[in-house]
Amino acid sequence: MQPFTRPPLVLSMGDPAGIGPEIIAKAFRERPALQGQVVVAGDVGTMHQALRVTAAEPDSACHPLMLAEVGALSDLDAVPPGCMAVAQACSLPRPVIPGQVSAEAGLAAADCIRWAAQAALSGQARALVTAPIHKEALSAAGVDHPGHTEMLQALAAAHAGLPVSALPVRMMLSCPGLSTVLVSIHVSLQHALKAVTLDQVLQTIRITDAHFRRAGLAAPRIAVAGLNPHAGEGGLFGREEIETIAPAVAQAQREGVQTSGPYAPDTVFMRARQGAFDVVVAMYHDQGLIPVKLMGLEHGVNTTLGLPFVRTSPDHGTAFDIAGTGRASATSLLAAIDAALAASGG
Amino acid sequence: MQPFTRPPLVLSMGDPAGIGPEIIAKAFRERPALQGQVVVAGDVGTMHQALRVTAAEPDSACHPLMLAEVGALSDLDAVPPGCMAVAQACSLPRPVIPGQVSAEAGLAAADCIRWAAQAALSGQARALVTAPIHKEALSAAGVDHPGHTEMLQALAAAHAGLPVSALPVRMMLSCPGLSTVLVSIHVSLQHALKAVTLDQVLQTIRITDAHFRRAGLAAPRIAVAGLNPHAGEGGLFGREEIETIAPAVAQAQREGVQTSGPYAPDTVFMRARQGAFDVVVAMYHDQGLIPVKLMGLEHGVNTTLGLPFVRTSPDHGTAFDIAGTGRASATSLLAAIDAALAASGG
Repeated sequence: MQPFTRPPLVLSMGDPAGIGPEIIAKAFRERPALQGQVVVAGDVGTMHQALRVTAAEPDSACHPLMLAEVGALSDLDAVPPGCMAVAQACSLPRPVIPGQVSAEAGLAAADCIRWAAQAALSGQARALVTAPIHKEALSAAGVDHPGHTEMLQALAAAHAGLPVSALPVRMMLSCPGLSTVLVSIHVSLQHALKAVTLDQVLQTIRITDAHFRRAGLAAPRIAVAGLNPHAGEGGLFGREEIETIAPAVAQAQREGVQTSGPYAPDTVFMRARQGAFDVVVAMYHDQGLIPVKLMGLEHGVNTTLGLPFVRTSPDHGTAFDIAGTGRASATSLLAAIDAALAASGG
Repeated sequence: MQPFTRPPLVLSMGDPAGIGPEIIAKAFRERPALQGQVVVAGDVGTMHQALRVTAAEPDSACHPLMLAEVGALSDLDAVPPGCMAVAQACSLPRPVIPGQVSAEAGLAAADCIRWAAQAALSGQARALVTAPIHKEALSAAGVDHPGHTEMLQALAAAHAGLPVSALPVRMMLSCPGLSTVLVSIHVSLQHALKAVTLDQVLQTIRITDAHFRRAGLAAPRIAVAGLNPHAGEGGLFGREEIETIAPAVAQAQREGVQTSGPYAPDTVFMRARQGAFDVVVAMYHDQGLIPVKLMGLEHGVNTTLGLPFVRTSPDHGTAFDIAGTGRASATSLLAAIDAALAASGG
């Protein structure tokens, strides 16, 4: 009907026993404009329950919200105003108990991710936002992957007919005014030191550059952090900057990337926040996550770079301790949705 | 004359070619109350020049300031209002050129530190604040120590008749709302991993506790950061938390210290900033310095813990590029003075 309308964003429900369903419902209540832009890949019964839980909130009366089941993302155009569009993306024989790990919940969460990823891979969805899943539930359901990133990487590689190793991905964490992309994530610091190789650093810079260019920046300014205090102070406190990081930066520059460094880790994030750079490539998990979480955990957005589609998620977990109470905040999820919309063309 | 008056604070001039002299003059202009509390250990000629440079500032006219030379800290009582008290603590045959490294400047800086440290060690000064020195100038002057910390440690150990190893010190960096004490400082990250031993971590906790108790906190709440992402996630990403850090925390608790951890490094600083802890023990340089510098470089204060006296310094260097122009800000020096006054009894 509207040929120039962009495809909708698909939002996977997450673990049905976690806060995912209710923060999705809250996000739709707080931001009615999502109705025409977002389809939830979830379980209709669970999302109905989430609407009930969030309707009890004293300030939610101003935005009455109903649920409209859709069969495909293209049906969103036919959904009337005042509705949250939900596609039944999994099979959940009975309601799950909030806050409890179960194989049923883990399987439902995995099915929603698969459904949503296929929508993104086929171009029916412009981008994917994932609500939080629970590692143990996923494992109880027999899902091999420890988290979203690995699962999406495998699905995207399979879709392209490539081995997983041919589709390297990186995690970016952002808060207002500060973004960082990590060379390595969930490994010990000892192991992370070994991951600081010329290839890994160069690949991280390339993936970062490609992401920001796709999001509309003509020449993203990429700062590369050093590994050691004061970036090694000329080799005095470590030689990785001289032998590994600087050569990776030089190679990326030769490829036309607007990158610089390595910079002293203890001031580069401050400088990025002041506007000197668009993003900082961090050498290990905590180097990047300490500053971003300090600046704004509530508004933290996790973005997977390197996939053939935009994928973001809120920077928090399933919060089983408060799941089902309606108390969880939708702030980080809304930030993730905003980031996905912006990175997929605004 | 006034037996209950606290001894003054002694402020070492720093490298005369750096911004030290002028930020000291600026601090006295901006905060006239310093006149009765602080004696500068410096060079009278250099401090006169600093007064001239800072008098040219358009907004400094409201606080006219003169220089009064004193022979000892006890002479401060006799200094009239409107004066900055300066003790000639070094010998500088001719004025140095701002922004230039020289052995003369390095030697003068070292002599001022020695003079000021003796005042603090003998109890004539209640605390020591040091203006920035230049490593190369110090080295050109034949001073063996790479910086203030090592020099003060050696002076204090000699004063007590102890070997340097018997007087372990630690660096604390603070900004408003966040303080961190580092297990190790200027070593490569690879080397810093090796410094995370039970003894080093325990010693850091003990030194931190002693400092805050001396500053007036009955039971300082000391958070201990982990080393690995998510503090190792139960041994999944590294075992240092289980084998080294947790046992050090447990031992300190048995000694009556109110400490806890190890906590996930990427959220512990945020929690400290929100008020959950008084200070965070960080496992390596950048783990602690990234968050503190991000929160407030302008107000950053460096404190040496473990010395027999309180010693602080601003968290910046000699800034040779702007030395002599009067443009340098006294904000961090004033924060260091405030911290030293607070830690030595308010």
